[in-house]
Amino acid sequence: MNLSPVDLVRKDLLSVEARMKEFPVPSAVPAIETLEHLLAAGGKRLRPALSLLFGRMLSVPDDPLFHFSASLEIVHTATLIHDDLVDGSPVRRGIPTVANKCSAGTAVLVGDFLFAWAARLAAATGSIPVVQKFAGALSAIIDGEIRQMSSGEADCTPDEYERRIQNKTAALFEVSCAGPALLADDIPSADRAAEYGRAFGMAFQIADDILDFTGDSKAIGKPAGQDLRQGVITLPAILYFRAHPEDPDVSAYQSGTHEPGLLARLIEKIRLSEAIEESREWARRYIERALEALASFPGGLHRNALETLVSSIV
Amino acid sequence: MNLSPVDLVRKDLLSVEARMKEFPVPSAVPAIETLEHLLAAGGKRLRPALSLLFGRMLSVPDDPLFHFSASLEIVHTATLIHDDLVDGSPVRRGIPTVANKCSAGTAVLVGDFLFAWAARLAAATGSIPVVQKFAGALSAIIDGEIRQMSSGEADCTPDEYERRIQNKTAALFEVSCAGPALLADDIPSADRAAEYGRAFGMAFQIADDILDFTGDSKAIGKPAGQDLRQGVITLPAILYFRAHPEDPDVSAYQSGTHEPGLLARLIEKIRLSEAIEESREWARRYIERALEALASFPGGLHRNALETLVSSIV
Repeated sequence: MNLSPVDLVRKDLLSVEARMKEFPVPSAVPAIETLEHLLAAGGKRLRPALSLLFGRMLSVPDDPLFHFSASLEIVHTATLIHDDLVDGSPVRRGIPTVANKCSAGTAVLVGDFLFAWAARLAAATGSIPVVQKFAGALSAIIDGEIRQMSSGEADCTPDEYERRIQNKTAALFEVSCAGPALLADDIPSADRAAEYGRAFGMAFQIADDILDFTGDSKAIGKPAGQDLRQGVITLPAILYFRAHPEDPDVSAYQSGTHEPGLLARLIEKIRLSEAIEESREWARRYIERALEALASFPGGLHRNALETLVSSIV
Repeated sequence: MNLSPVDLVRKDLLSVEARMKEFPVPSAVPAIETLEHLLAAGGKRLRPALSLLFGRMLSVPDDPLFHFSASLEIVHTATLIHDDLVDGSPVRRGIPTVANKCSAGTAVLVGDFLFAWAARLAAATGSIPVVQKFAGALSAIIDGEIRQMSSGEADCTPDEYERRIQNKTAALFEVSCAGPALLADDIPSADRAAEYGRAFGMAFQIADDILDFTGDSKAIGKPAGQDLRQGVITLPAILYFRAHPEDPDVSAYQSGTHEPGLLARLIEKIRLSEAIEESREWARRYIERALEALASFPGGLHRNALETLVSSIV
């Protein structure tokens, strides 16, 4: 039987789930029912899983580790709710978004409520370095989203893309991995765990952006090329645009034409181009970097699981 | 010459303003220009002023005190931006709201950015009790707003009103006053400062709700009776409704009729009724409570200023 690397902390994840839902508000408030539904629907719980694997590897006590791991998933959920509102997305993981199901106002306040709840959970760890790192990651995430919203389409370069996903995605993976080392007061480990988490996050986001072009639209729960349709240029598109400056569809897109026929053609061209394999190559380089950062940690089940987890991204 | 009680910390307030604006984002991002404009426009800086007066009275060092005071104003500004978005308010303090001037998406992200910045400033105090109290206040504020959004109009009682403004307004005043005592590791003072801040906040919100009926609409920057028009029932209306159950306008309003003629009549009736003076009496009771909490602090300029400040609310 093939074990998932996350199975090692499956029981701990249940404790984390329980803490995520202990927020102090009567469920009579309709907005909170939505919230409970949303938290129960769940994602892959990837950030708590990483935090638990590092925490167990470094022998962090249950209480601060569970609080910290719960705060990661809560803050992630909050950013998704606000992100969906900003993007006007009607559906996430196959279910209607909060803004769509209730109202924009509910989405704003439910997201804020989760930010506050995450801050309380982070403070409950009793560690100022953890709270500082956590607040820094939150700043970075929002900064990434603001840049994404403000970014012009014509001037998106690989550098700008990397800066954006570093903030938007990698910063929270970084704190997910570094946090447990900070809880263990182990600064050298925190730096290497941060490096692993950052590289994990970069590879993860690049893989997600590839999937946006290559994935089965039913399986990923949204139409292919969704980013490009919304004017967000990710790595496969950047690399394709650079390699094919002569393609009239590229210049039409870059000068602001987004009509459906053009979009469909462009998405299909990118999907079939070498830009996909090149993007995979970028992701693999980050995976290598993550594995290097991991090498100095004590060998054993937890390190193995972290190796398997990052290697399976591409 | 009549000195304002805030003049005692006027110079400190400038240091706090400077820290408020040190957020680490290039001003090239358009959303951030809005933010700088907004922070410069300024409010009364009442929360930092309270924090500074307590901080100076209790000899808290500059650095944590300024970080803490800045975080209060930042979180207050963030909640206003999201609040205006949720309420659909076009104007605040005479200038267009972020949602109105830019977009709903910008208002969401700029507010989130400020929450993150406030969390970083709070963490920079290096005090876990302060971060915990701060995160608790943020939870309470959002809880108050969610309740306000979800509250039915018919069932609003003085108790429900007090619970709402305790969360929506008094919680942040409470942490503004208790925070400096926590920074000084002075737990007994923190409890009494919290009591002063809570009572200050309750009196402040009641006074604001009275002003919504009695104030000159030009001076307060919005039409009279704005709350009632938006379906938010505050103390003067609650007391009037209770005293005049036979008034046909009351039952019409409570059964959901909000046509302009009815609203104008009802607002005028409340403005001229004894409910205004009764509401003032409620505020005065909170002011008494705040003065009692203050009595055990060391006498001197700072205590005098805090006495003057709370006494001038009504």
